[in-house]
Amino acid sequence: MNVTVRGRTQPFRTVAFDRARNSVLLIEQRLLPHEFKIVAPKNFRETAAAIRDMIVRGAGAIGATAAYGLAQGALAFRGRDLPKFRRHIETVYQSLKAARPTAVDPVNAMNGVRAVMCAGRTVAEQQSLALAAAEEFANEDVRHCEEIGRHGAKLIRSGMKILTHCNAGWLAFVDVGSATAPMYVAQAQGKKFHVFCDETRPRSQGATLTAWELAQQKISHQIIADNAAGHLMQRGEIDLVVVGSDRTLGRTGEVANKIGTYTKAVLAKRHGIPFYVAIPLSTIDWNLKRGFDIPIEERCESEVLGAWGVPWNFKSQISILKSQYIRVANPTSGARNPGFDVTPPDLITGIITPVGIVKPKELWIRRRKLGFAD
Amino acid sequence: MNVTVRGRTQPFRTVAFDRARNSVLLIEQRLLPHEFKIVAPKNFRETAAAIRDMIVRGAGAIGATAAYGLAQGALAFRGRDLPKFRRHIETVYQSLKAARPTAVDPVNAMNGVRAVMCAGRTVAEQQSLALAAAEEFANEDVRHCEEIGRHGAKLIRSGMKILTHCNAGWLAFVDVGSATAPMYVAQAQGKKFHVFCDETRPRSQGATLTAWELAQQKISHQIIADNAAGHLMQRGEIDLVVVGSDRTLGRTGEVANKIGTYTKAVLAKRHGIPFYVAIPLSTIDWNLKRGFDIPIEERCESEVLGAWGVPWNFKSQISILKSQYIRVANPTSGARNPGFDVTPPDLITGIITPVGIVKPKELWIRRRKLGFAD
Repeated sequence: MNVTVRGRTQPFRTVAFDRARNSVLLIEQRLLPHEFKIVAPKNFRETAAAIRDMIVRGAGAIGATAAYGLAQGALAFRGRDLPKFRRHIETVYQSLKAARPTAVDPVNAMNGVRAVMCAGRTVAEQQSLALAAAEEFANEDVRHCEEIGRHGAKLIRSGMKILTHCNAGWLAFVDVGSATAPMYVAQAQGKKFHVFCDETRPRSQGATLTAWELAQQKISHQIIADNAAGHLMQRGEIDLVVVGSDRTLGRTGEVANKIGTYTKAVLAKRHGIPFYVAIPLSTIDWNLKRGFDIPIEERCESEVLGAWGVPWNFKSQISILKSQYIRVANPTSGARNPGFDVTPPDLITGIITPVGIVKPKELWIRRRKLGFAD
Repeated sequence: MNVTVRGRTQPFRTVAFDRARNSVLLIEQRLLPHEFKIVAPKNFRETAAAIRDMIVRGAGAIGATAAYGLAQGALAFRGRDLPKFRRHIETVYQSLKAARPTAVDPVNAMNGVRAVMCAGRTVAEQQSLALAAAEEFANEDVRHCEEIGRHGAKLIRSGMKILTHCNAGWLAFVDVGSATAPMYVAQAQGKKFHVFCDETRPRSQGATLTAWELAQQKISHQIIADNAAGHLMQRGEIDLVVVGSDRTLGRTGEVANKIGTYTKAVLAKRHGIPFYVAIPLSTIDWNLKRGFDIPIEERCESEVLGAWGVPWNFKSQISILKSQYIRVANPTSGARNPGFDVTPPDLITGIITPVGIVKPKELWIRRRKLGFAD
């Protein structure tokens, strides 16, 4: 998407590759929204560290980073010894895989790249196939998000007020995003609408990343406290809810997503407001039989007990220093911090996929079309 | 309630009076939870400033502060000239009233004190009646909260997990509180239970004030993000919800309270969890005919866009500096910030009043008992 930095507008992808420098190019997401910076890890170990340290985050984005990282590692190999090259690739693979051990996207992405590489008969051929496969993985991620946008944009009419939760934007993918994709396509179609971004405590991805994205794309938006959506719905100020998903159960239509998603779905149901979930196909889990079995990560309590931001000068409206942590809560109190929740299918109007909008209960019936492999 | 500062435990009221120094004693609530300090405004003008600057906040607490402030002003008068004394009292009254122009509690409290004073035939008599009336106002606030606690404690069984939102604790009253009162009484009865405090963004009164109160009283508790209650309810981890109220409509049973209350009521209903509202009688509005007409204060967007806290040293687990504001959100985005919402009676299991627990729709039938004056 286009990003304007110091008056200059340029297109960026969240993850890209620089052939000349043999380097992955990443938006340093830990500095957002207060600073925009591209970093270029010099070798596969630095790329793995970028995934581990969350310079890049989001399922699609870390998948592409790992794919590019594997190609980067392959291209850095000097020599023609194929067995030695294969051992080197194994080292690169394990290093990138270990960066986010519970994520599936990097593993799937790298497996895809490796499968393509095998066709090469020489080191040089395998190197060039690796990069081509990584590029193809990234491009497919973008195409899928664009398809989500094309299908989802039909739900958006001019004058609508749309609620979204957390960040399922282009920063979480290679480009375009999932929940934000319908907004970007609708905007390109000339539709005018307004977006409410849930702050999304405790990590505030809505207030930081989604708001930054929408501001960059000049989409009318406001941040609200997670507490405020119910009131706005009561007053008829929300017409549509679109969120992303971390894992969607193909067998049941249950959706695991950032903590607070379930609450918004319950509120939307009470008010008869359509509630949609936008997902790339890689998000569908075809195995698990009930949402209750999805492991809900219990995260560090410091996230709930405080906040990250920049000390703020109200007069100049600018930050004075680097981002820092403040303790908000009572120092002698602890916190519970579940990171995700599960929304049942009866609260979901539809699931926006790259191949069309389906009812959550229809995922299983349409599993072939949705990429299910027996 | 008892407060432990540097290992020493002492009882405190949120608002008290020091006869020797002719001064109101207030807990400096702006420093909580990071520092506990009692301030003693030297004269009625300083007391008015303490209300205005929110050193003291909460309906019951500012009512008592204004009552004591009026007595403080009366006692500071030197001389026997009754007409001159009356003009002086008028100045004190107007000064205290202007401190929080939209609040009704200070006005009601001061009108009560003035009515009692009138019976005095000399300045000295009126001065002493003023203080007695202010003390009586404060004591009645405490008695009402104790009665709320006595009725509400019947709802609490050992082993329960209770959710509360915002701060309707003793810091918002002279002592004991409204939503917290049943917890304090149940604890005194030997019941063991656990409280989840909603953080209550954007001002975080749950994470700061309620958590501090519960920690002081050694009640088992944890802070949760406002997003987390829905998930905990799904997993059967919440048995009871108790909140306070800023205004309750006697004619309809609708409850206006801190933004996010409505959301918790909708969630509780879905999960069949009892949802109670604890209110002193002064909170009931007998005039307004529908909740939609309750003016919802739209507050400053900086509350949503950032947070207040102390820079935190993770190693020493202590604050390094005074409280400061950080900007969390994207600097080029704005916010909506409604301060309150309205919960309809169909979501409220019962209203805990000083005279017993009633159904929201029964407030009007029982209006005589609840202090309604034709």
